[in-house]
Amino acid sequence: MQEVYLDNSATTPLYQEVIDYMSSVQAKFYGNPSSLHRKGIEAEKEINFARGELSRVIGVNPGEIIFTSGGTESNNLAIRGTAYRHHRRGKHLITTPLEHPSALNSFRQLAQEGYEISYLDIDEKGNVDLNKLEDLLGPETTLVSVAHVNNEIGTIQDISQIGKIIKNKAPQALFHVDAVQSLGKVEIKAPENNIDLLSVSAHKIHGPKGTGALYVKEGTLLQPLFYGGDQEKDLRPGTENTAGIAGFGKAVSIYFKHKQTYVENMSELKKLLFNSLQNYQELYINGPSPEQGVPHILNLLFPHIKGEILLHSLEDKGIYISSGSACHSRRPEPSHVLASLGLDATQADNSLRFSFSSLNTREEVDYAAQKVVECIEELKHFMK
Amino acid sequence: MQEVYLDNSATTPLYQEVIDYMSSVQAKFYGNPSSLHRKGIEAEKEINFARGELSRVIGVNPGEIIFTSGGTESNNLAIRGTAYRHHRRGKHLITTPLEHPSALNSFRQLAQEGYEISYLDIDEKGNVDLNKLEDLLGPETTLVSVAHVNNEIGTIQDISQIGKIIKNKAPQALFHVDAVQSLGKVEIKAPENNIDLLSVSAHKIHGPKGTGALYVKEGTLLQPLFYGGDQEKDLRPGTENTAGIAGFGKAVSIYFKHKQTYVENMSELKKLLFNSLQNYQELYINGPSPEQGVPHILNLLFPHIKGEILLHSLEDKGIYISSGSACHSRRPEPSHVLASLGLDATQADNSLRFSFSSLNTREEVDYAAQKVVECIEELKHFMK
Repeated sequence: MQEVYLDNSATTPLYQEVIDYMSSVQAKFYGNPSSLHRKGIEAEKEINFARGELSRVIGVNPGEIIFTSGGTESNNLAIRGTAYRHHRRGKHLITTPLEHPSALNSFRQLAQEGYEISYLDIDEKGNVDLNKLEDLLGPETTLVSVAHVNNEIGTIQDISQIGKIIKNKAPQALFHVDAVQSLGKVEIKAPENNIDLLSVSAHKIHGPKGTGALYVKEGTLLQPLFYGGDQEKDLRPGTENTAGIAGFGKAVSIYFKHKQTYVENMSELKKLLFNSLQNYQELYINGPSPEQGVPHILNLLFPHIKGEILLHSLEDKGIYISSGSACHSRRPEPSHVLASLGLDATQADNSLRFSFSSLNTREEVDYAAQKVVECIEELKHFMK
Repeated sequence: MQEVYLDNSATTPLYQEVIDYMSSVQAKFYGNPSSLHRKGIEAEKEINFARGELSRVIGVNPGEIIFTSGGTESNNLAIRGTAYRHHRRGKHLITTPLEHPSALNSFRQLAQEGYEISYLDIDEKGNVDLNKLEDLLGPETTLVSVAHVNNEIGTIQDISQIGKIIKNKAPQALFHVDAVQSLGKVEIKAPENNIDLLSVSAHKIHGPKGTGALYVKEGTLLQPLFYGGDQEKDLRPGTENTAGIAGFGKAVSIYFKHKQTYVENMSELKKLLFNSLQNYQELYINGPSPEQGVPHILNLLFPHIKGEILLHSLEDKGIYISSGSACHSRRPEPSHVLASLGLDATQADNSLRFSFSSLNTREEVDYAAQKVVECIEELKHFMK
């Protein structure tokens, strides 16, 4: 059976070259990077290779990269690490209702601990209201945290503008960008955008799961989430996941060599799928139009069709997509992102996310479009 | 050049079968374990395989295993997760001065946050004074945390007795065992020993770095270190490191099949090295005698020889060992463990740790012993 994987916002298949590279690192450079002898130094070199690759593509210094166990840890470290470290300066934090659960639930926890959290307004396409940001920023604000690209609907926030507003109005506030969904899809250079903290994850760009990173601008102080050894500048103790980190570096290295081509390709595929389906089905787009938004995410509402049923029908034909956000898709609640856009529970239930990667082809998308149309026709028949 | 890796307490070489298994999991089961479709279910099965393997060898239920990014995270989650979750019942915690930095620095942080930490006395071999434990336990005690095996000197604590004392005197207190160095070396079944929380790490038994686990006894409440999705029973959110976890399961599976043989072999090698060196060199053993203590750790004091110089001389001959604890070996301070035994800074500086794994052979140890003797002779000459 043909398989078409279109759930790349949840996770991407690894590049075979990354898998092979990790195997080789595991076999050859198994030493503890903290060890004083050669086996330690060799392992450390692999970590430094990855630090170099990653820092290059976001325009920062290698010493400003802290490796973590993934996007969730990076977001927690940035958000809660800032809140705890700077609570004497103020306990006011600003974010949006569209954040990933790892950010949103960090803020909910902080609210329980006595912090004041302000949520920016968003419009029906998921764009943040920048006027309100200016009003909210005050001397007590220690952090503004915004996802560059929403993982469910693909809205791209104007990070550059947000950075400017923060640094004009409340220069003491740190600016954290959750770039897990944008790395490699939308250009993001930390220094030009007044970013102090930036979260990324390896498995969204064909690297391994269990590895992420946080850019921490030189001089930025955070409270760590863990205590232990002195790895990663005391910000992230624990024996480094050498192979995972090296695999992250390799994935960045491979992906960014052809980034422009990949981005254009994903963007074409997204438009192709949308146009193919639009010709045959009643559908609405959740979030930005296919021309706007990130190149790799398309969230569609098919009225009268329960998303989860369509998802499983497509699964039977080898097509893999997501209903709601796959990161917490087994929760029965409707997506908080779709609810924020104003969708009711039924509309959210009738929505599906198609997401692309550098590995998808035109043929796959043609096949997927055809099967979606077939499945919907079958289900409509069945539901009458 | 022949290479003899004797720094296995810092980290072990991976089994090639584990590396291959992880590669295969990465290639085939790349889906997000939280995804609703088959790609998610397949990945989840790999995690459940590992959960089954690990739970079996520590005698618990698969549902009581929480996967983490490693021993440091497991220790932090157990210690700080207990302290924060139960602070209304009391703020008194008990541990020992011999703990790994990930435990020790968790306690130091808690002390700064207003918790009262009691440190048990130890004798000159590193054994905990159990009489004092009974005196210290009170109604305010929420946690006792003890490493089963010390990572530097290999002392084995009487976990069974400690568990009994806790449950008799202060049944409300949770008992956490850091079993990172003991898993596979010394039998440890959680239920028979009144253990509520138990930390383990994959890379100490030929598994991958970046993966650990915490046994959390059914019904035990902890405050998580991260907030996010609902993975690992809400105790450890973030996309699961499928391949790392599967590799952990595979390593456990391979190792425990021949555990008894490996343990006997390591124990023989340790005695062989000790006896070979003792015949030619003035040396003292730090911690328990070779017959006591864990089978895989031998910490030796060579008077008049600076450990780090000997370490690098041996490195030049392809022999890899550790001075102090490799987990934080680039810190200039002398080992806190050796200091606790009563060694002065010079004695600690003159100490080296040799640690074995299931992969070491008699030939390797013969070679290493010969080179240690040669190096010491050379250095003595040089130092005159």
